[in-house]
Amino acid sequence: RTLSMMLGLAANAHNAVSKEYLTLNTFLGATPTEEMNGAGNLMDFLDEPFPDVGTYEDFHTIDWLREKSRDTDRHRKITSKSKESLWELIKSLLDAWSGWVVMLLIGLLSGTLAGVIDLAVDWMTDLKEGVCLSAFWYSHEQCCWTSNETTFDDRDKCPQWQKWAELMTGHAEGAGAYVLNYFLYVLWALLFSFLAVSLVRVFAPYACGSGIPEIKTILSGFIIRGYLGKWTLLIKTVTLVLAVSSGLSLGKEGPLVHVACCCGNLFCSLFSKYSKNEGKRREVLSAAAAAGVSVAFGAPIGGVLFSLEEVSYYFPLKTLWRSFFAALVAAFTLRSINPFGNSRLVLFYVEYHTPWYMAELVPFILLGVFGGLWGTLFIRANIAWCRRRKTTQLGKYPVLEVIAVTGITAVLAFPNPYTRRSTSELISELFNDCGALESSQLCDYINNPNMSRPVDDIPDRPAGPGVYNALWQLALALIFKIVITIFTFGMKIPSGLFIPSMAVGAIAGRIVGIAVEQMAYHHHDWIIFKNWCRPGADCVTPGLYAMVGAAACLGGVTRMTVSLVVIMFELTGGLEYIVPLMAAAVTSKWVADAFGKEGIYESHIQLNGYPYLDVRDEFTHRTLATDVMRPRRNDPPLAVLTQDSTTVEDVEALIKDTDYNGFPVVVSRESERLIGFVQRRDLTLAIKNARQKQDGVVSSSVVYFTEDAPQLPASNPQPLKLRRILNLSPFTVTDHTPMETVVDIFRKLGLRQCLVTRSGRLLGIITKKDVLRHMAQMMNQDPESIMFN
Amino acid sequence: RTLSMMLGLAANAHNAVSKEYLTLNTFLGATPTEEMNGAGNLMDFLDEPFPDVGTYEDFHTIDWLREKSRDTDRHRKITSKSKESLWELIKSLLDAWSGWVVMLLIGLLSGTLAGVIDLAVDWMTDLKEGVCLSAFWYSHEQCCWTSNETTFDDRDKCPQWQKWAELMTGHAEGAGAYVLNYFLYVLWALLFSFLAVSLVRVFAPYACGSGIPEIKTILSGFIIRGYLGKWTLLIKTVTLVLAVSSGLSLGKEGPLVHVACCCGNLFCSLFSKYSKNEGKRREVLSAAAAAGVSVAFGAPIGGVLFSLEEVSYYFPLKTLWRSFFAALVAAFTLRSINPFGNSRLVLFYVEYHTPWYMAELVPFILLGVFGGLWGTLFIRANIAWCRRRKTTQLGKYPVLEVIAVTGITAVLAFPNPYTRRSTSELISELFNDCGALESSQLCDYINNPNMSRPVDDIPDRPAGPGVYNALWQLALALIFKIVITIFTFGMKIPSGLFIPSMAVGAIAGRIVGIAVEQMAYHHHDWIIFKNWCRPGADCVTPGLYAMVGAAACLGGVTRMTVSLVVIMFELTGGLEYIVPLMAAAVTSKWVADAFGKEGIYESHIQLNGYPYLDVRDEFTHRTLATDVMRPRRNDPPLAVLTQDSTTVEDVEALIKDTDYNGFPVVVSRESERLIGFVQRRDLTLAIKNARQKQDGVVSSSVVYFTEDAPQLPASNPQPLKLRRILNLSPFTVTDHTPMETVVDIFRKLGLRQCLVTRSGRLLGIITKKDVLRHMAQMMNQDPESIMFN
Repeated sequence: RTLSMMLGLAANAHNAVSKEYLTLNTFLGATPTEEMNGAGNLMDFLDEPFPDVGTYEDFHTIDWLREKSRDTDRHRKITSKSKESLWELIKSLLDAWSGWVVMLLIGLLSGTLAGVIDLAVDWMTDLKEGVCLSAFWYSHEQCCWTSNETTFDDRDKCPQWQKWAELMTGHAEGAGAYVLNYFLYVLWALLFSFLAVSLVRVFAPYACGSGIPEIKTILSGFIIRGYLGKWTLLIKTVTLVLAVSSGLSLGKEGPLVHVACCCGNLFCSLFSKYSKNEGKRREVLSAAAAAGVSVAFGAPIGGVLFSLEEVSYYFPLKTLWRSFFAALVAAFTLRSINPFGNSRLVLFYVEYHTPWYMAELVPFILLGVFGGLWGTLFIRANIAWCRRRKTTQLGKYPVLEVIAVTGITAVLAFPNPYTRRSTSELISELFNDCGALESSQLCDYINNPNMSRPVDDIPDRPAGPGVYNALWQLALALIFKIVITIFTFGMKIPSGLFIPSMAVGAIAGRIVGIAVEQMAYHHHDWIIFKNWCRPGADCVTPGLYAMVGAAACLGGVTRMTVSLVVIMFELTGGLEYIVPLMAAAVTSKWVADAFGKEGIYESHIQLNGYPYLDVRDEFTHRTLATDVMRPRRNDPPLAVLTQDSTTVEDVEALIKDTDYNGFPVVVSRESERLIGFVQRRDLTLAIKNARQKQDGVVSSSVVYFTEDAPQLPASNPQPLKLRRILNLSPFTVTDHTPMETVVDIFRKLGLRQCLVTRSGRLLGIITKKDVLRHMAQMMNQDPESIMFN
Repeated sequence: RTLSMMLGLAANAHNAVSKEYLTLNTFLGATPTEEMNGAGNLMDFLDEPFPDVGTYEDFHTIDWLREKSRDTDRHRKITSKSKESLWELIKSLLDAWSGWVVMLLIGLLSGTLAGVIDLAVDWMTDLKEGVCLSAFWYSHEQCCWTSNETTFDDRDKCPQWQKWAELMTGHAEGAGAYVLNYFLYVLWALLFSFLAVSLVRVFAPYACGSGIPEIKTILSGFIIRGYLGKWTLLIKTVTLVLAVSSGLSLGKEGPLVHVACCCGNLFCSLFSKYSKNEGKRREVLSAAAAAGVSVAFGAPIGGVLFSLEEVSYYFPLKTLWRSFFAALVAAFTLRSINPFGNSRLVLFYVEYHTPWYMAELVPFILLGVFGGLWGTLFIRANIAWCRRRKTTQLGKYPVLEVIAVTGITAVLAFPNPYTRRSTSELISELFNDCGALESSQLCDYINNPNMSRPVDDIPDRPAGPGVYNALWQLALALIFKIVITIFTFGMKIPSGLFIPSMAVGAIAGRIVGIAVEQMAYHHHDWIIFKNWCRPGADCVTPGLYAMVGAAACLGGVTRMTVSLVVIMFELTGGLEYIVPLMAAAVTSKWVADAFGKEGIYESHIQLNGYPYLDVRDEFTHRTLATDVMRPRRNDPPLAVLTQDSTTVEDVEALIKDTDYNGFPVVVSRESERLIGFVQRRDLTLAIKNARQKQDGVVSSSVVYFTEDAPQLPASNPQPLKLRRILNLSPFTVTDHTPMETVVDIFRKLGLRQCLVTRSGRLLGIITKKDVLRHMAQMMNQDPESIMFN
């Protein structure tokens, strides 16, 4: 044992010596020993990396193991160099810190963008109704801040802010003014949405949608060039403002994740560590997604958990820390910009004054059931509509579609005060508890004149006419939102789903909350209220019901659980309400899962046929690798290369005739013993290079993948030695391996392909595409819809 | 393509037919086809599972892939059966819900135990000083709750509560009473710790220590029987109370995680789904760890993140949800028991009234540096001391050691009021802001008589003599805690590290906080204070410094980051203070990492030589599989079986001569082509079984691993067919695979062993032990210290 240890150490020392000129080759699989022996025989041109080596083509899957290996090599190189000089040491330190620098930059930029978007949306939403005379770039709220009026009610109607009709005709009231305002509201909405869809169409088609399905796919190791590019960033930011301001039933949360990921991608290009390694780049993008949610809600912890639970594929602990850092920086940047003007970090800050009671769990769970049903309905209807858009004429007129939906939305939204305003304002009002100073319709309760009014702790009161009026309007708003959101999500403009889903849930929750409150007030003696709700006590908080409903609906659509509860927890800042939220979120997930396992993002991934291997899908069928591998029975045999009997011509023919990403190399066609795997891209590059630069390599030259090639007379075609591009450690499984294990291996190791052997003989190959197609087939889905690998 | 799809579907239908009697065998790797052909030839005894199949021996590593495979088989079986009858359907639903039931039970029991422990510790800690006359089972605080005194100060000295000297001699004051109290304090401490160490020694040796290193190892896939058993649960709960009450410098947080994991293990045995599958069991244990931290601090989200960041190895999303549920239930159970009497969930509830300022980041970062240095010092000194205990005579007298340390602790702790009381009370006081009604020494500021005193917003004031006195005592307490904790952690009693670490940090932080506060008060005009600290303003909160210091020290010792910040965030309940906490935690981690990458738990894992493959250790050396595999050069060849030429005798000899966990099976010794892998345990059981039950199997019988065995005349020894126990899908890598990839594969797939091949020929084997030994060797550690695989 001591001997073997010493041998190991000796081998190690030996490696240290040959460390420098091995860096490129080891990831391709050459051993140090061969390196030392064979180096002299190899052609010079191979000592330099090919310009494109290690990159991937668009719409291809990356090989995680290879990316990781390359990063380790890079790291090793920098570490060994750092001992040489002070400059190299500084460079290595900079390299080590670059991850944190990127996080800082992402946090700063995404926080700033989110702040700017918030401010712009505020202004443009109000522009649909009127303008600030003192300074046209002020929103309604900002305009009236400086007003001298004292009450909230008067401040809302401060003279500096004028509605369009008032400004144009001088009359603020009356049917004429109403119609003019109505007309201009619709006109502005159409203008904004037309601008948004045109910008997307012309400059950045990738800027449409929420972006989360695509980001999930990219993070799982797929290449979609330009999806996170500078243009997409710019156009998405601008069109997001336009789309939200147009009053469509969509939110900015999903697109903000996309925007943050674009920022991440942008800053990746500053450091070769990230720009040249698709694996490392995805670590940064995971953290950027966390920063995106962090600024969307002002919930940094929730953002990190969202990235972990919902978006990311490979999330090592290092990324956890960095995501948290990025999310915090982003949240604090947003807070310094202070777009909500209340120095609060969170989008919907609420503070409740009363606890909840066990009996209330029943309506909370009912809200959970509602959320689950809404999630199912929404996903089915939306997917059906999107499929129709993809397959029929409808998809050919995206601009017209957006205009039409905006028109319908604006026309229907204006008459109802709860849909006329922006959706986040609506949610905010629904979440709020009715304080003593609240003047909204929803807080129009009948006060007991004999009672002194404490500021915070107002007892339950009977509802006044305003509340009943509000209930009707809310019910109409609920139906409107449910229907219109189905048609809105998936159009060719940036559109998030969080806010509309939460709005549906908040409306339903508030209605239920008011109902329970009035029941409790009028029926103190009922057995269910008797124990916890005495007359004159403040027992039911309708705002909490709205929040629970919002969580339930969001959970039903996205199937988030922990991150959802944590986001909601960060909004309220108290552990007190975690149990109601958790109960609703889990119920909603269970109900929705009973109708279909996939959330909206997974459904859209499937609809678009992205090659996404979901971590959550459990593969429970009992097929074996041999059932999935290619070639199938009756197929032509597998396209392989032999180690020492294929000519350059043959190789070129093979490359031309097939579209495989790589070829296994075997000892001989008879023995079929596998020795390695060569990537198509590397092979093409190497042959091209050799034909140009290496004398004597002609079509009839033999390609050698062995360690040594025979010395041939100069008159014969010179052999082409390609061992250096051969991956000597391809991943193999036996034909008897159960597919569940193969799926597990593909998922956990992030493979592109895997070779199938039996007693050392090569039988076939399984690619990620094969795995996905097989899984789809097993679940009776259309296996042909999966994008090429 | 359509044809191959149809074939695939046909194969699938075929599988469904043969589903039932395949369940055991598939995980051993037999294909359905062989099954159908070969079933008739196989002996009956193999159709029934061997009694112990799939279990592991003590101190062995589990095979995650195999466990997962087994669970999928079980699941499949239940699903197919559930269509047969209503009863089976109900059983399958129960099975699906059992995960949540286990979580509920874990939450309830661990919450209850935590509550009971808290109450008992409170009572017994006070018992060292005195007793409640009205009811001896009341702690000091509970005793005086019913008192009629009105001020806090008087209530502390309520007549029902009597110190021992007062009770025994009638004199409460004077030197005699002091000495008597001193003597009895030490005596009680010695009694408690003697009881604790004796109980541990006699009944449950595994109950000692914090348990977290062992739980990390167990969760990574190691078997330590009895470590999470009922006796350990019982004894750890009891001795934890004794150890904490004895006043030793230890906390209950780590052991609570162990207790919660014991609960988890206990409830696993209720459901065969968990009790019979070591992989599934570990999912439950991960969730239990979250519940443990949740009740330790009253921080459910922090608990889940702790389990994710610090403890768990395999943490699928499903476990995330379940952990969260368990953590919530545990927290709410604890809250209903209400051990702290304030209906607060959290251990140290604090509420600060002033924000922090950018300039304060400097002292916060300095506290981070202090935390990192303390972490390094503590880990080095503690490991050195533990190593000395392991290797010298010292380890032979654990009881004496505990008695001695308790004696020293008690003797030194009594004179100083900050060390006399329990450590969590101390931390609580240090965290607190000085309100107007605070009567403690630390809040003895000189008040401006002209100033009206608002209750919450007290401006900075000059420190009075009490504060200076407290500073001296705190400085002494700091030194005392630093030294004594090094010797305490690792003794043979339950001992957690969180509370002592936090105490060290909180003391240091409070001292720095008071210093900054006084500087700011006396030097308003200094440029650093000028911008944010006007005279008469409340600018510095010393309590916040204590909290930041506590976070820094805990971070330095454990290297937690996100979970640490989240736990602290849950204690304060405001996002406001996340930045100071994050700055300190990250600085502390960086400083500590600069001196050594390992936290205290990893160091103890290494000290004890547990086979733990850390997810965080990056393996960056450039060795290849061929350098690590056995046999090494000059070693005897690998012990293999051939598929059709080994006799029962040979197999038995091989089993006897070697202690390998399994043997590769090859086509023949000449070709060395691998066909499968057979587990030693299965082989032994199969041969034993065959010898007993199968006629004609004698020592000279040939063992066949092929699909068919030749038909021999009855006079010849009958062949023994063992294909069914052969794993036909062993994991292989080529000899050229870089070790970093091999390490990655071992980590992510949780392998036990991996075979090394070259062009299909078997060259050697790599076990988890080999990987660990190689990693240790590369890092210049003692590779022989790793426990057997």
